Amino acid sequence: MSLYQAPLRDFQFVLHELLETSTVMQACGRSDFDAGTIDQVLAAAGEFAEGVIAPLNASGDEAGCELRDGVVTTPAGFRGAYRQYIDNGWSAIACSAEHGGSGFPTAVENAVNEIFGGANMAFSAYPGMSQATYVNVRANASEELKALYLPKMARGEWAGTMCLTEPQAGTDLGLLRTRAVPQPDGTYRITGSKIFISGGEHDLTENIVHLVLARLPDAPPGTKGISLFLVPKVIPNADGTLRERNAVVCGSIEHKMGIHANATCTMNFDGATGWLVGEANKGLAGMFVQMNHLRLGVGITAIGVMEAAWQKALRYANERVQGRAPGSTAPADLIVLHADVRRMLLTMKANVEGLRALALWASQLVDVSHAHPDADRRRDAESLVALLTPIVKAVGSDVALESTITAMQVFGGHGFIRESGVEQHVRDVRIVSLYEGTNGVQAMDLLGRKVIADGGIRMRAFVDQVMAHAETLHARPETQEFAGPVLQLARRVREISSELVALSVADQHAAGAASVPYLRLAGHLALSHVWLRTVEATRTKADSGDPFYASKLATARFYLKRLLPQTVALCEEIRAGAGVVMDEAALPSSS
Amino acid sequence: MSLYQAPLRDFQFVLHELLETSTVMQACGRSDFDAGTIDQVLAAAGEFAEGVIAPLNASGDEAGCELRDGVVTTPAGFRGAYRQYIDNGWSAIACSAEHGGSGFPTAVENAVNEIFGGANMAFSAYPGMSQATYVNVRANASEELKALYLPKMARGEWAGTMCLTEPQAGTDLGLLRTRAVPQPDGTYRITGSKIFISGGEHDLTENIVHLVLARLPDAPPGTKGISLFLVPKVIPNADGTLRERNAVVCGSIEHKMGIHANATCTMNFDGATGWLVGEANKGLAGMFVQMNHLRLGVGITAIGVMEAAWQKALRYANERVQGRAPGSTAPADLIVLHADVRRMLLTMKANVEGLRALALWASQLVDVSHAHPDADRRRDAESLVALLTPIVKAVGSDVALESTITAMQVFGGHGFIRESGVEQHVRDVRIVSLYEGTNGVQAMDLLGRKVIADGGIRMRAFVDQVMAHAETLHARPETQEFAGPVLQLARRVREISSELVALSVADQHAAGAASVPYLRLAGHLALSHVWLRTVEATRTKADSGDPFYASKLATARFYLKRLLPQTVALCEEIRAGAGVVMDEAALPSSS
Repeated sequence: MSLYQAPLRDFQFVLHELLETSTVMQACGRSDFDAGTIDQVLAAAGEFAEGVIAPLNASGDEAGCELRDGVVTTPAGFRGAYRQYIDNGWSAIACSAEHGGSGFPTAVENAVNEIFGGANMAFSAYPGMSQATYVNVRANASEELKALYLPKMARGEWAGTMCLTEPQAGTDLGLLRTRAVPQPDGTYRITGSKIFISGGEHDLTENIVHLVLARLPDAPPGTKGISLFLVPKVIPNADGTLRERNAVVCGSIEHKMGIHANATCTMNFDGATGWLVGEANKGLAGMFVQMNHLRLGVGITAIGVMEAAWQKALRYANERVQGRAPGSTAPADLIVLHADVRRMLLTMKANVEGLRALALWASQLVDVSHAHPDADRRRDAESLVALLTPIVKAVGSDVALESTITAMQVFGGHGFIRESGVEQHVRDVRIVSLYEGTNGVQAMDLLGRKVIADGGIRMRAFVDQVMAHAETLHARPETQEFAGPVLQLARRVREISSELVALSVADQHAAGAASVPYLRLAGHLALSHVWLRTVEATRTKADSGDPFYASKLATARFYLKRLLPQTVALCEEIRAGAGVVMDEAALPSSS
Repeated sequence: MSLYQAPLRDFQFVLHELLETSTVMQACGRSDFDAGTIDQVLAAAGEFAEGVIAPLNASGDEAGCELRDGVVTTPAGFRGAYRQYIDNGWSAIACSAEHGGSGFPTAVENAVNEIFGGANMAFSAYPGMSQATYVNVRANASEELKALYLPKMARGEWAGTMCLTEPQAGTDLGLLRTRAVPQPDGTYRITGSKIFISGGEHDLTENIVHLVLARLPDAPPGTKGISLFLVPKVIPNADGTLRERNAVVCGSIEHKMGIHANATCTMNFDGATGWLVGEANKGLAGMFVQMNHLRLGVGITAIGVMEAAWQKALRYANERVQGRAPGSTAPADLIVLHADVRRMLLTMKANVEGLRALALWASQLVDVSHAHPDADRRRDAESLVALLTPIVKAVGSDVALESTITAMQVFGGHGFIRESGVEQHVRDVRIVSLYEGTNGVQAMDLLGRKVIADGGIRMRAFVDQVMAHAETLHARPETQEFAGPVLQLARRVREISSELVALSVADQHAAGAASVPYLRLAGHLALSHVWLRTVEATRTKADSGDPFYASKLATARFYLKRLLPQTVALCEEIRAGAGVVMDEAALPSSS
């Protein structure tokens, strides 16, 4: 039984037919990634995922990590798999050529990350965090630090972490207390305790590069007094050989609902030597390079887990015989023939394929925002990435959780049993709505910082883009039925965004009360746009009878008719206003 | 830190002020249950739940059950707690006086069950299943079997199980293969293997009474050839002393997502001695007495778990300081002051309180349907119980799952850590949507068997009842804002029910494609009715400033304005029709 199969055909569709990645990258001055090269990479990723890490997923969950005397041992097989991972060059896939990287487009990098996340989320989170750390160091550190650290990190010989959270400072990093005291030699002594550090300690690499937020002695209070430091587990010599153990140790690891094989550590810094990254007191902005990279990344991991769960459910529905389907004369039929099971399967299919296309589009826009020769295109792409990042993170993770729960439901009682493998997906993916900024934080990032703060201009531009596209397709008889609901939704989002911008002036709770349904609504806007582009890319081919395209088109129809109606309710919820939420009588403060 | 607190005040409100249980029971000829007696029972249940079984909830999850040589050992503390449970008379709370029971009304029994389920779902599932077995034997068995078994079961000395599922027969019991061969002495030899048997084996009682579905040698195929047998673990003498071990053993126990402390067993019957219960080949109907009892019961357990999770989230929100609330000048505020956290808390509060009132109303109707002197009242109550049972089971469990997930979200990253206790609630409650008939089965039971099969008459009667009540309140200015949305919803349900009755004649998949959103829609109809009755019962008292009633009224407003809008989307989903679901192109059968 296959535990996981990389959905290569769908990646090909999204990258080549929907996003035209090769062409877009060529316009960005990168002509080395034709479709054949991309397909080869994806096929190799699939082989590694299916053959090496998927088989370690259940056993890793069962065994978990162990901490003894400050040393974390990953589950059996993880060290070997990681060795293969870096030997195959996966850690370097998107790193710069100057550090020995392959420099693949972000869309390809994230397709690969989806594959690895789907095969084994706990395993893939180790290099996932390291990649994000690499990006942070590359964006913010001095040339000296970059030269010393980045080649090692690109090769995957040194891992990386992000040390933000403290017991009293999670969402609110302004409350953090870890101190950094400057030393005569230009380094800093870092003292404090950080919690929830993913991969804070493990046995996969010889060194771990911690990026730590801390306060200088003279720092102003709150978020304006936070600086970013690089604190290696082992201090290296200038030539990259290892010199001495730094004063940072893992004090404990968490017992969690899922991703048991990924060590979540309390890291104690006891006068550890660190190097300042970027400017003093501007550490939070620096860290956001990594944070945004991760938000897209964890959203994509969630999509991978959703894919794995959907594959299991689809296979089970095609094997399990139970109940007679309407009109059948057999004693009992495959459950895939029952309407309610099909409803569940199609919901999962529409969710995973729509979100995949959306996430890879957002990934591609990251490259366009950096490398396109046209400044307007760069600016537009950057603006869209800002909107789509919280959507991919939060809608991706919430919908992935819903879909993995639905996959369990297809299994009936068998889904509750560990052996089915599907309940692990629920437990694993549950964390994605919580970390790298809870989904409530994503929602306020979207509505507060990215919609209301600029008077809704950025969102209006996106709505206009969606509407212009939908209007074109609405004018063609053959695509009218698909474009209609998208047009209607775009109008609704335009109206409700304006209302919220206006309302937030008078009511300070308007944004907070509306943010979560607004994010989901914006997610549907983005997804419906992606599905309409999918209709455009598949309709003619579907008519010619190719089952892949016919299935895509039918899935688009299902999404637009059965899932998009959720947006009506979201609008009503938002319009109910902040009053019912803030009513002091409803939740007496003494309760 | 309190792990769980029985919501006594809310039970008092529901039983005394909303349902007027004492008065209704008096009309049913039961004058022995005044408010004071009921309150005493609930307080005692709370004490037992808080002091004895809540402290075993996390440790039971951690330890799980162990199977060695056919013997299942429950987690440390469970045997002692069970001894206390039966010594306190909890097993007999709703049993008949002739078997030594206390004969409490079903609404009180289920209030107690909610309390025990909330404190420790895995523990309470053992006696919960035994109670349902008692009800089955009492309804269906011969006088001889009843006299021998029921007093022991009422005292909790003997436990009970329900043995239905086989590897190839879950939802579709017509496929079951376990055989029963008649013996010259009037007994039967039962041979076969049953899976997913909750409490199939354990160390809490000296005997376990299995109610087993099996086929006689001459039985017709399918569901019309199923008979019900009583198969004790230890065969008793006529005086109730234990004679000899029967040929039934536990072959394995499942490793599950949750309720680790409740043993889910494979039970192997190898020519075990059994006694026929009820008529031959009519076993499925007999078993449905137990099944319906359980469906209400597990829905109520889910509400208990939801209550436990909501309590934890509310406490955390009142302790955790993070982020500055709009308008505040403090460095950071309690998270309960943030609008999005309030939205989550109020969603949970509205869910748990609404479903509690609905479930206890359905419980009370069970007694009315049996004992009311007026035949019309009995018939109406029975009809309503038939509608409300799948709603309490399925909406209760789905909403409980959503709410426990929301409770985790309030905790942020801390919610993912075992120590918080909240993630266990998600893992435990997940099973309720799957067992005793998956929620898809509940939805078809409601729409297929209870709405479409009688041409929608029963549902129309319920809609009329809801509308008549809402119209009365709509005519009063002070309750108009509450009644308006309920009226609107009732009209929608009336229309869509008629449409589905008509549609199902022509389209054999119409019911299956609509069933799950229809069930949720019907759930909102029932909940909105309950909330409107709550408005009626609280409005005047709320105006006088009592915080309990003011909170109730504000929660009603939140439910009607923020949660009820979901129904608009559900109607649109249903009206999208079966075509998009059954489209062969969407899910090619080869995939």
